[in-house]
Amino acid sequence: MKISFESDYCNGAHPAVLNRLVATNDEPSGTYGSDRWSERAREKIRHATGCPQARVEFLAGGTQTNATILDAILAPGEGVIAVPTAHIEVHEAGAIEASGHKVILLRDSTGTVERHDLMTVVDLEQYLDDFTADPTREHRVQPGAVYITVPSELGTLYTAAEIEGIYNICQHYGLKLYIDGARLAYALASNECEYDLAWLAHHCDAMYIGGTKCGALMGEAAVFPRGDAPRAFFSTIKRHGALLAKSRLAGVQFDALFSDGLYERIGRHAVDLALELRSHFMSAGYEMYGASVTNQQFVVLPNAVISQLTERYIFEQWEPLDNERTVCRFVTSWSTTDEDVASLGADLARIVKA
Amino acid sequence: MKISFESDYCNGAHPAVLNRLVATNDEPSGTYGSDRWSERAREKIRHATGCPQARVEFLAGGTQTNATILDAILAPGEGVIAVPTAHIEVHEAGAIEASGHKVILLRDSTGTVERHDLMTVVDLEQYLDDFTADPTREHRVQPGAVYITVPSELGTLYTAAEIEGIYNICQHYGLKLYIDGARLAYALASNECEYDLAWLAHHCDAMYIGGTKCGALMGEAAVFPRGDAPRAFFSTIKRHGALLAKSRLAGVQFDALFSDGLYERIGRHAVDLALELRSHFMSAGYEMYGASVTNQQFVVLPNAVISQLTERYIFEQWEPLDNERTVCRFVTSWSTTDEDVASLGADLARIVKA
Amino acid sequence: MKISFESDYCNGAHPAVLNRLVATNDEPSGTYGSDRWSERAREKIRHATGCPQARVEFLAGGTQTNATILDAILAPGEGVIAVPTAHIEVHEAGAIEASGHKVILLRDSTGTVERHDLMTVVDLEQYLDDFTADPTREHRVQPGAVYITVPSELGTLYTAAEIEGIYNICQHYGLKLYIDGARLAYALASNECEYDLAWLAHHCDAMYIGGTKCGALMGEAAVFPRGDAPRAFFSTIKRHGALLAKSRLAGVQFDALFSDGLYERIGRHAVDLALELRSHFMSAGYEMYGASVTNQQFVVLPNAVISQLTERYIFEQWEPLDNERTVCRFVTSWSTTDEDVASLGADLARIVKA
Amino acid sequence: MKISFESDYCNGAHPAVLNRLVATNDEPSGTYGSDRWSERAREKIRHATGCPQARVEFLAGGTQTNATILDAILAPGEGVIAVPTAHIEVHEAGAIEASGHKVILLRDSTGTVERHDLMTVVDLEQYLDDFTADPTREHRVQPGAVYITVPSELGTLYTAAEIEGIYNICQHYGLKLYIDGARLAYALASNECEYDLAWLAHHCDAMYIGGTKCGALMGEAAVFPRGDAPRAFFSTIKRHGALLAKSRLAGVQFDALFSDGLYERIGRHAVDLALELRSHFMSAGYEMYGASVTNQQFVVLPNAVISQLTERYIFEQWEPLDNERTVCRFVTSWSTTDEDVASLGADLARIVKA
Repeated sequence: MKISFESDYCNGAHPAVLNRLVATNDEPSGTYGSDRWSERAREKIRHATGCPQARVEFLAGGTQTNATILDAILAPGEGVIAVPTAHIEVHEAGAIEASGHKVILLRDSTGTVERHDLMTVVDLEQYLDDFTADPTREHRVQPGAVYITVPSELGTLYTAAEIEGIYNICQHYGLKLYIDGARLAYALASNECEYDLAWLAHHCDAMYIGGTKCGALMGEAAVFPRGDAPRAFFSTIKRHGALLAKSRLAGVQFDALFSDGLYERIGRHAVDLALELRSHFMSAGYEMYGASVTNQQFVVLPNAVISQLTERYIFEQWEPLDNERTVCRFVTSWSTTDEDVASLGADLARIVKA
Repeated sequence: MKISFESDYCNGAHPAVLNRLVATNDEPSGTYGSDRWSERAREKIRHATGCPQARVEFLAGGTQTNATILDAILAPGEGVIAVPTAHIEVHEAGAIEASGHKVILLRDSTGTVERHDLMTVVDLEQYLDDFTADPTREHRVQPGAVYITVPSELGTLYTAAEIEGIYNICQHYGLKLYIDGARLAYALASNECEYDLAWLAHHCDAMYIGGTKCGALMGEAAVFPRGDAPRAFFSTIKRHGALLAKSRLAGVQFDALFSDGLYERIGRHAVDLALELRSHFMSAGYEMYGASVTNQQFVVLPNAVISQLTERYIFEQWEPLDNERTVCRFVTSWSTTDEDVASLGADLARIVKA
Repeated sequence: MKISFESDYCNGAHPAVLNRLVATNDEPSGTYGSDRWSERAREKIRHATGCPQARVEFLAGGTQTNATILDAILAPGEGVIAVPTAHIEVHEAGAIEASGHKVILLRDSTGTVERHDLMTVVDLEQYLDDFTADPTREHRVQPGAVYITVPSELGTLYTAAEIEGIYNICQHYGLKLYIDGARLAYALASNECEYDLAWLAHHCDAMYIGGTKCGALMGEAAVFPRGDAPRAFFSTIKRHGALLAKSRLAGVQFDALFSDGLYERIGRHAVDLALELRSHFMSAGYEMYGASVTNQQFVVLPNAVISQLTERYIFEQWEPLDNERTVCRFVTSWSTTDEDVASLGADLARIVKA
Repeated sequence: MKISFESDYCNGAHPAVLNRLVATNDEPSGTYGSDRWSERAREKIRHATGCPQARVEFLAGGTQTNATILDAILAPGEGVIAVPTAHIEVHEAGAIEASGHKVILLRDSTGTVERHDLMTVVDLEQYLDDFTADPTREHRVQPGAVYITVPSELGTLYTAAEIEGIYNICQHYGLKLYIDGARLAYALASNECEYDLAWLAHHCDAMYIGGTKCGALMGEAAVFPRGDAPRAFFSTIKRHGALLAKSRLAGVQFDALFSDGLYERIGRHAVDLALELRSHFMSAGYEMYGASVTNQQFVVLPNAVISQLTERYIFEQWEPLDNERTVCRFVTSWSTTDEDVASLGADLARIVKA
């Protein structure tokens, strides 16, 4: 069987998560979020975020969570500001627009690969200054929120100062800051990460802590750190088809993820192996694409090398760079092993020598 | 611990389903519906429905599935005809309207308890005749589909002739017939049921086969029996936030449910016990509310009796009938045992004697 | 040429309105609501409503105004409560649902013809009590507003006590009361009307004062009596495609309508003639359908009589009553003349004698 | 009074249009598009477009027409491709997204001022090629239509070859081409315009012929040249709040505009004067911004000159170029006179000399 670096969601659940599901299967429970595990998981997340008042709800998937939270925090017709590579802009099939909200694209004024999917404070401020000064602004989509991803689509991280800057601007202009944390575990586990979960929760208006890509079978935790979820948020979840009848499924898993440091361990494990992978690629002389410090590594590979690697490994060909080279993505997760990485390292060394 | 007849989704997964999840957890797989178990489950559902061309997709929950399928089969702004007790009308928090589709209420012209949440052929035809004859019909919401539930909200069943009648009218007027099968297992398991899954699939345009309430942890199978799902249906699922990243979660479970007659066995087990419950209630002299032949039983209980029963049992007080009596709902599932039912039967006999 | 009682919008503008358009045509002006006539008309409406703080905006048509105001005052996904004959329920092609808002039907518990399209205080209170007591209410569409029409679809009027009762309930439950005044001029002109425009404006949260059906070529005045239109209401109008570029068109007309008592005179003229019509029908022995006191009169006519009348008159056959009789609607407006009514009166007398 | 070059909709109706409204005011008519003038105007537009089968409907305003037509021709959730300066992207307050449709931005790869708001065939083809080749395309918004404006926002024109190229690509990829003709009269009147109305109608799937900015008080003609408007298009118009009750208002005006070559004459008059304006600016040594050949002229003026001009003229300061210069817009229309233009010319000459 080939070794897969395809994604962090082509495996099952982390064994500790699965065991918890098995262990609790026979206990009857409340439904629609009222089960005891969901309650317990909420408490643990309130603790981990340092937000005792936090409103926490568990939804099934990422696009759903983005669409539900943004629809909840935006007034009707308001837009959300995002960078052109944002998941909500590119890969959610119009889920945001389906609720009538425009994704307002913030142009990148720096253009370097590393920054390319990180929003800059300067660009955001410029946009909002221009908007405010525009005499025709009432004819435009009113911005109501800012969307950022931690880590970014390319695995990079905002500095604490950058997030603080973005958050300050949001507050100045009356916008909500929403953080997509689909792969948050991998950001927090990075040595480069200047903040922890609690700091992050105190520097946004809403966020989600990803489960699906961080060791669960499914599930994302929507968090309003200050407990100020919009009125009727439960009904909003239901209206978006995002309310789980057997909410225990998410509750049990998040209870497990936030017990015994599991979420941190999953993140650390994957990031360590990803950095090892990165080092293998660089040792073998390949150019990395972007400066990812998390569990996704992007590397520029000659197409001939790709052909050889695909015989033993599964990974994504992200996008063609030119006729001879392609940006490829290698992803680690709880299920990646030291052996998987070592094997790839050895093959890279061998191929290069050839 | 109290014995629960509260619902068919306050338990975990049927053991056979859970075992399959455990057994497959370590195998890597495709994502977003491309995993091998989803493929296998699709094939089994095509076989079970006798529809080799069927398009089958797995979504997380019921409201989500209703909203996604109806949005897919309705033209923009078209409405769906339903009875006033329909789940999409009452208990989906506006998920259908969220896509711009009106739920068009069909008034019930019979008014008996047993029929009260079954659509009648006569009422449907009358509505469509009137609509067609109305010179202002272009100012009204155009009907595009008919929504029925099998079994109904009160656990009753349409006859084959009724479904055939409704389907014929739909075809005559160019509407789609969509069947909500959240508890389909329990309809098909009833001795009163005049049709099987294949017959049903041949008498509608779209349907969903419920998993969450029939032994799975989550998951509903959206089925277009003739394979004629609307163009870009995959994107529609994604847009509704209903696409599972780790689609294996649903795939494995439906693969299990449609192996070795498990879906039928779950249905049969629950219906048998429900009928036994019904018989206990009737023996004890209580009036049943509606003529449910499936796994939900509705009974009129004096409030004093309810007080005594709640000491040992969990069940839903459905709606007050008058100052002294309440309609109560008792639900069975794969996890209900013979002992649970016998216990309640004994208590009913005792209470009555008292 | 036949005499038309077909509707109050199959004529042009009242001559005084048209003259004002001609007189101002050559003056350049502001646009998008900033023209001087719109400003002037706003001031006059603030005066007429006794609401010096009122926010007033002019939109093109009735359905558009209902959809825009309701979308503005409802939170996302909230519903609006209305009676089954409400214009937003029946004749707006899903414009309310198009913004994701359900029309929540309030069942009529009285059933008499006269009341049939008036909401009762009792029914509204009952609905909201039941909703509040429902443990599953979070799964339902949250009511956010109440919609009533003055006069009703059948030309009848609420008493002041009824509107006060409805408004009090709205305030108690935190709902907005919105009044559709498409034909408001004819309500206010009725001798049976217990309130004036200012009283009405003080007993609702939002309303619209109809122009199209009351002497203008187009135009409706959306009014927030307390000036508390939702944030970004201008953008909401624009988003609904309801912002007039040449806003002068509406401004000039409303300026004219609210000058020299014209709006009152148009209403009075039409109501006087409508009551005369009603008296002709009753003298001739026909049964009226409902107790309209405004400019629309509904009468039950034998089909044979209809055949004769249609030779000289245009009117709407509202709905068949039985095989031999039809409810017909006769409407008066600024353009109806004494001669039109006298002619119909004479013909009715003649036909009856025959 | 200052001379206004502010816009082509800050005046009233062209006298011939106004006269027609006055002349027909007393005639009763059909409503909701069934009046005789609307019928007549439809016939004239069918003739002018050389499309005897065309479906023509009259709506109140431009944003409304864009939103209604795009919602009609797009499948649910589909997006419309447009350039970043497109009116639907920038100045319609989210009206397109309000129906759930994304505006997909086509990046401009040429970057010259003249082209800056014209879509290029190359860019469009590149986008669609990339989209088709993208393995994740089902996760993206599906493109369903292309939106272009004739003339462009900056007053420039597509060549016939360019429109043909865009239309061919649309047909190849199964997209609809929709043309926003808010100022179409001024495009067709330009000497640089390589096509007439009929040619244009034969090279798109839907278009609108602007009335509001071309001599009417309000009104836009939505045209489906081949008569293949989507099913229930009338209801779609109604749902968008875009159906005029007194449709005669638009019907009479378009009947007038398409009689005796009035639409052409209005266009020609304004374009002639605009080119004269342009020539005055260039003679005076100012740099034009873009190569507008229609009734909007954009010129780069020193702020000091602007100060002097605003004493006698009204015009829009479009956007700041740098600290000392601003792009200004001067617009002509039916109401602009030779004297207006000559006066500005003289002042420009004087100011320069100074």
